[in-house]
Amino acid sequence: MTTAQYDVLGIGNAIFDILVQADDAFLAAHGMTKGSMALIDEARAIAVYRAMGPATEMSGGSAANTIVGVADFGARAAYVGKVKDDQIGQLYTHDIRAAKVAYATAPAKDGPATGCSYILVTPDGERTMNTYLGAAQDLTPADIDPAQIAAASIVYLEGYLWDPKNAKDAFVKASKIAHDNKRKVALTLSDAFCVGRYRDEFLGLMRDNTVDVIFANEAELASLYQTADFEAALAQLRKDVALGVVTRSEKGCVVADNAGVTAVPAFPVAKVTDTTGAGDLFAAGFLFGMVRGVGHHESGRLGALAAAEVIQHIGARPQTSLKALAQQHGLPV
Amino acid sequence: MTTAQYDVLGIGNAIFDILVQADDAFLAAHGMTKGSMALIDEARAIAVYRAMGPATEMSGGSAANTIVGVADFGARAAYVGKVKDDQIGQLYTHDIRAAKVAYATAPAKDGPATGCSYILVTPDGERTMNTYLGAAQDLTPADIDPAQIAAASIVYLEGYLWDPKNAKDAFVKASKIAHDNKRKVALTLSDAFCVGRYRDEFLGLMRDNTVDVIFANEAELASLYQTADFEAALAQLRKDVALGVVTRSEKGCVVADNAGVTAVPAFPVAKVTDTTGAGDLFAAGFLFGMVRGVGHHESGRLGALAAAEVIQHIGARPQTSLKALAQQHGLPV
Repeated sequence: MTTAQYDVLGIGNAIFDILVQADDAFLAAHGMTKGSMALIDEARAIAVYRAMGPATEMSGGSAANTIVGVADFGARAAYVGKVKDDQIGQLYTHDIRAAKVAYATAPAKDGPATGCSYILVTPDGERTMNTYLGAAQDLTPADIDPAQIAAASIVYLEGYLWDPKNAKDAFVKASKIAHDNKRKVALTLSDAFCVGRYRDEFLGLMRDNTVDVIFANEAELASLYQTADFEAALAQLRKDVALGVVTRSEKGCVVADNAGVTAVPAFPVAKVTDTTGAGDLFAAGFLFGMVRGVGHHESGRLGALAAAEVIQHIGARPQTSLKALAQQHGLPV
Repeated sequence: MTTAQYDVLGIGNAIFDILVQADDAFLAAHGMTKGSMALIDEARAIAVYRAMGPATEMSGGSAANTIVGVADFGARAAYVGKVKDDQIGQLYTHDIRAAKVAYATAPAKDGPATGCSYILVTPDGERTMNTYLGAAQDLTPADIDPAQIAAASIVYLEGYLWDPKNAKDAFVKASKIAHDNKRKVALTLSDAFCVGRYRDEFLGLMRDNTVDVIFANEAELASLYQTADFEAALAQLRKDVALGVVTRSEKGCVVADNAGVTAVPAFPVAKVTDTTGAGDLFAAGFLFGMVRGVGHHESGRLGALAAAEVIQHIGARPQTSLKALAQQHGLPV
């Protein structure tokens, strides 16, 4: 194992977010399931967008949000994900590189446009995503640079990669390279409906040690084990993966491994404006804590801090320096 | 004079905003004059953008922001401005139509991309704009539909239109049609440096009654009359235009006509996050008050309310219903 050039390398669907405020009636009128991520085709994207109000745009993508957070804490980060060489792809590329993330995935020259997620933010701060994968679905194993993967201490993957047809092969290729180089592989389960689509595959990845670390929220954990019994699901998670981190919204998170379970409180916020990116930024803080080797409790606090930052404004990328925030709260950086 | 189909029709440079937080050192390092709008060419746009951090994108354009505000208060609004038929132009078109503004200007099929403003927001909330006009410079008199202009009670024009080479002809054409139909014409002076570029032309427009109403801030007024003596400048303004409205940041505004001068207080805000659009939204509220015929004081309060809303978040378009805000504050809607 050589010295790592990157602390965390993320692989995910590169998605540009188009965010708009909407009420619950809008979700109902358009058949949207609140809080979920629905995959939509181009025709549906056009129809949804047409119905939406004036929007704010910002780069997104689950793993990309996490990686930007990791970099913002001050760690060395890289990202792999596919945009098209179009105007939105150029905005996306700017944003991730401007966040000091190494990003070298070749943009698609033809085929569908850069992927977009049409995100409805309801007055309670919950976000409902309608994602047109676009160019993201063209991520293939050829986009995985073995030398770059080998040079990252942790490879972080999103469950959403199971949706595009070739990305899962890229995922498995990256995981194998990482393990061949004694690196760790982390996976976020992404979304309860995504878990519903790929439950057996995800359990397989855990049980055959393709992944070492699982990030999930309560709904995803419940979907994974098809039980509403949190403790039972957690016990199963501990059997299936070396390290499991389960977020529980305002109840904080639990960190579970063979040695035991650590509960970590959340950072309370005065008002939740937009939950988009909450899980992504939690993962950013936790991964940063892993990189710094600060233990489960402090890692969980770093995750909670980053999540608290991102839910207090529109959009899934941090607007306040996470490094400075951590210092203010006496957390390790 | 037939019954108006629109309360306010705005004509301006259609500009997509790319907003980023930056410190004063960044402005200094890149030779930017804080608080101003600088016109930049494509090469400079590329260089500025490359140096900028991760951004938030939102539709902008001075008159367009105003018109969106007018519509948000509940008036009937239309906009004329040129984008290209590219991805950013499509985002722009969506946003203004989704704000219930009639927008029918044909997008450019070729030529430069949709215009963008690279906006640096410093910690004090001040915004510094670097604008690449792009397709906006292709607005011509052919884009002015006489029937539409004739159908608007007030035509609202931005001084920035003097920058693109053909837009001033469109401006003059629109003004003539409006006056031929007994409509009012309002002009915002836009920016103190813009006034510096076109001082004589703007004074000419006022003195030959091409415009009936002037919106300006203190710096623009000082630039127009080349004096730091506010009272002297205001006295001159009253001679030159039927109605002058001068904003004074936290000191509120003054509304001046032949009958006298009315001072109107601002709405205090806890924290100024981003002044982008402050003047634009002030004009929106004031124009809405004019449309409703509520008098100078109430119009000024509506303007102050809209300005207060927009400076408390990133971006120049309202994020809270202005109509609901006005109702909460007991202002006429």
